[in-house]
Amino acid sequence: MNAEIVAIGTELLLGQNVDTNSSWIARQLALLGVDVYAFQQVGDNEKRMEEALKLACGRSQVVITTGGLGPTVDDLTRKVAAKVGQKTLVYYEHIVKEMEARFFRSGRPFPKSNLNQAFIPQTATIVSNPVGTAPGFILKVGKSHLICLPGVPREMKAMFEATVKPFLKGLEPATGIIKSRVYRTTGISESRLNEVIADIFESSTNPTIGVLAHPEGVDVRLTAKTATEEEADKLIDELGKILITRLPNTIYGLNEEELESIVGQMLTTRHMTLATAESCTGGLISSRITKVPGSSNYFLRGYVVYSNEGKSDMLKVDPKLIEKKGAVSAEVCKALAENARTQSGASVALSTTGVAGPSGGSAEKPVGLVYIGLSDESSTQTFKFLFTGEREVVQMKASQAALELLRRHCLGLPLGD
Amino acid sequence: MNAEIVAIGTELLLGQNVDTNSSWIARQLALLGVDVYAFQQVGDNEKRMEEALKLACGRSQVVITTGGLGPTVDDLTRKVAAKVGQKTLVYYEHIVKEMEARFFRSGRPFPKSNLNQAFIPQTATIVSNPVGTAPGFILKVGKSHLICLPGVPREMKAMFEATVKPFLKGLEPATGIIKSRVYRTTGISESRLNEVIADIFESSTNPTIGVLAHPEGVDVRLTAKTATEEEADKLIDELGKILITRLPNTIYGLNEEELESIVGQMLTTRHMTLATAESCTGGLISSRITKVPGSSNYFLRGYVVYSNEGKSDMLKVDPKLIEKKGAVSAEVCKALAENARTQSGASVALSTTGVAGPSGGSAEKPVGLVYIGLSDESSTQTFKFLFTGEREVVQMKASQAALELLRRHCLGLPLGD
Repeated sequence: MNAEIVAIGTELLLGQNVDTNSSWIARQLALLGVDVYAFQQVGDNEKRMEEALKLACGRSQVVITTGGLGPTVDDLTRKVAAKVGQKTLVYYEHIVKEMEARFFRSGRPFPKSNLNQAFIPQTATIVSNPVGTAPGFILKVGKSHLICLPGVPREMKAMFEATVKPFLKGLEPATGIIKSRVYRTTGISESRLNEVIADIFESSTNPTIGVLAHPEGVDVRLTAKTATEEEADKLIDELGKILITRLPNTIYGLNEEELESIVGQMLTTRHMTLATAESCTGGLISSRITKVPGSSNYFLRGYVVYSNEGKSDMLKVDPKLIEKKGAVSAEVCKALAENARTQSGASVALSTTGVAGPSGGSAEKPVGLVYIGLSDESSTQTFKFLFTGEREVVQMKASQAALELLRRHCLGLPLGD
Repeated sequence: MNAEIVAIGTELLLGQNVDTNSSWIARQLALLGVDVYAFQQVGDNEKRMEEALKLACGRSQVVITTGGLGPTVDDLTRKVAAKVGQKTLVYYEHIVKEMEARFFRSGRPFPKSNLNQAFIPQTATIVSNPVGTAPGFILKVGKSHLICLPGVPREMKAMFEATVKPFLKGLEPATGIIKSRVYRTTGISESRLNEVIADIFESSTNPTIGVLAHPEGVDVRLTAKTATEEEADKLIDELGKILITRLPNTIYGLNEEELESIVGQMLTTRHMTLATAESCTGGLISSRITKVPGSSNYFLRGYVVYSNEGKSDMLKVDPKLIEKKGAVSAEVCKALAENARTQSGASVALSTTGVAGPSGGSAEKPVGLVYIGLSDESSTQTFKFLFTGEREVVQMKASQAALELLRRHCLGLPLGD
C-alpha cells in the first residue's frame, strides 16, 4: 500500500509557513507500514488543487490532504475533492448542530460562514473533529482513498489518531513497516564519530545508519524495514548494542530525550542537589534544567555572574584573581564552581566562564574559549573547551558540555578524555 | 514566470527531516516576482524523481531541485536530470581539480566517490559551490529551466544568492512581486487583536492581513502584491500606520526582531543597567538577554532563586514573609525585584515567581499564576498574570511579559492595563 500527502495553502508556497504536517503524517505512516510515494504542496487555487489531487489519486492508494477545510471562500478542499471524485456536495444538518453546540459551550456567537463546513462530498465518510469545528472526510476516488484533514496541526493530529489510523489499519495487512531509533551523543565530533563507525556504516543495510550533527551533539539514527514492529526493534537493538560498544559513554539518550531530563532523573534517584554559576552561558544551563517538570526537587539556585563585580560580589571571587588571571580562566572558573556549591549547600555545582563572541576575543583568549567547572564535596575540576560557531551556538555547546560533565559525574565516568 | 520546487530525499518522505529549503527558496522567489506553482518532495528513487521532474518541467518555466547531488549511489539528480533533458552526462576535469584543491586545503584525503560529482548533463551551465564540493547546474528542458542545487541548506543558499538569483533576474522582467512585513505584538490575545482589526482585516485586499499566535505574542503579517518592491513598501507602510494606531504600544518589533534585542538596544541608548531575580522562569530571562551580542554592556547579573532558601539567602527575602504569603506572592515578588536592584546596583531589576506546572498548583494559586516585578530607583511595582499552556509555554510567556514590562518602562509607557 502506498500513500501520498498533499498540503494545501498559499502561505506554504509563499514560504511564510513551513509544512510540518506532512512530516508528522509520514512518520505515522512509516510505522503503519504504508510507503509514502511523494509529498505535494499547492496553493488555495482550484485548478492546481484539482491537478494535484488527480495526479495523487491516479498513482497512490491513499491520499491524505491537509488544509483548505476552513469556513472562508479560500477553503476549497471540499469542492475540489467532490469534483475529483465526481460527487456532489451534501449538506449535513448534524454537522451544523455539533458546530453550534461547540460555539455555544465556548460562549461565542456562531458565524454564518461556518455553515460552509457542513457540506461534504456525497458517499464520503465523515471524520469528526474532536478539537475544532471543521470535520474531515474520506472519499473513494477510483481505487484511491482520499482522506481530507484540516491544516491546524492539533486538529489534524487528533483526527489522524482517532479515525484515520484505525481506518488505514483496516484497509489491508501491512507487508512491512519502517521504524527508527535515534542514539544521541555529545562530546564527540561528527567526523570522529564517522571514523569510529565507518565499517558498520558501510556494511549495515537493515537497519540503515544516518548521522546528523546539531550544536548539542551528533545523533545516530538506525532505521529498520521489517515485517513487524517487534522485528524492527530486535534488529535495531542488535545494531544498537554494537553502536554502544563503539561509542562508550558518549550516548546519553534515545530519540527525543534531552540531556537536561536525563541528568534530572539521575540527580533525583541519587538524592543529589545542584547549583549553577554561569558567566558566558548567562542562565542557559539553569533555564534548561528548570524546563524539566519536578526540577525543584534537585535544583537549588543559580548565580548568573555576568559582570566581574557580580563574580566577586555574589560568589566571593577575589577581584585580584580576576585581575591577574582574567575572568575567563581556569582559576576563576574553579572559584565560581566551588563557591556556588558551598554557598548553596548543593551536593554539586557547575560553572562556566568564556568568550561567547562575536566580539571580546583575543589571540590568547579567542571567541569560543570556555572553561567549565564541576565541584563536589571532594574536589573541584575545571575543563577547557574551544567551541566553534556563532554566539548562540557557543552558548548552547557550553551548556551541553556542562550538563554532560554532570551526567558523567553522576555515573562515575571519567570527566576528561 | 512561474516556478516549482522539487525537494529530493527519502528522509523527507520518512518524516525524519522537514523540508525547510523549499520555503526559503519560495520566499526569495516571491521577492523576485516569480509565482510559485507547487512544491513536490520525492525520495531518492529514479522512477519517481523522473516523474516529478517531467511533471514540473511540463508546467513550470523554472524548476528548482534541492538534494541528490552528493557523491553516493543514492544521489541520482545528475542522472535523472540528464534523462529528463535527453542529454548525456559529461565529465568535467576542472570540477575534479576544484574538489581536490578544497580537500587539500582542509587537510583531508580526497575520496574517490567524489568523482561522481564531476559528471554534469551536457549543455548545462555549471553552478559553482562556494562552500562545499557538489556543484549544481542549470539545464534547459523544453521550455523550462531546470536548476539543480544541493540539499545542504548552507550550500544551497550560497549558490542561490551567487548564481541563481542573477540568472532568474536576467530571464524576463518581473511583472510583479510579493513582499510581506510582520508586526510583532505581545500582551494582547489573538481574539482581542482580531476584534480590534476586524474591519481592516475584512476590507484590506492589498496588502492582505494574516494573524499568527505564538507563546511570545501575536504576529500580524501584511503581504502586498505590487509591481515593484518600492510600491509594496509604500502600501505596507500605509496599512502599517493604521495597524499601529489600532494597536497602540503593543507592537514591539518587525519581522524577525526579538524582544530581548529591542530591549537591549533601549537599555544601551539609555545607559541603563539590568539585573534579574528569577524563580519560576529559572534563568530564561537572563538567558534570552545574554543571547544578544553586547549584552554585557547593560546586563550585570541574575539571581536564579529557585528554592525558598535561595530567595532568603541570595536576596534577603524574609523567611517569615515567604511563610506567611507564600513564595508565589506579590510581596515576595516585590522583595526579589527590589533587592536584586539594590544588591546589584543596576538601574532596573526584573523578578518572577509563579507556578509553572504541571504540578504544584492549588485552587488559590493555580498553574500559570505568575507575579512579575519591576524595580527602579523610584518604585517597585508587581503585576499578576495567569498564563495558559504547558510548563515551557508558561515560562516563555512569563519571560516575554517581563521583557515587555521593561520595554514599556524604557519608553515611559504605562506598565499596567
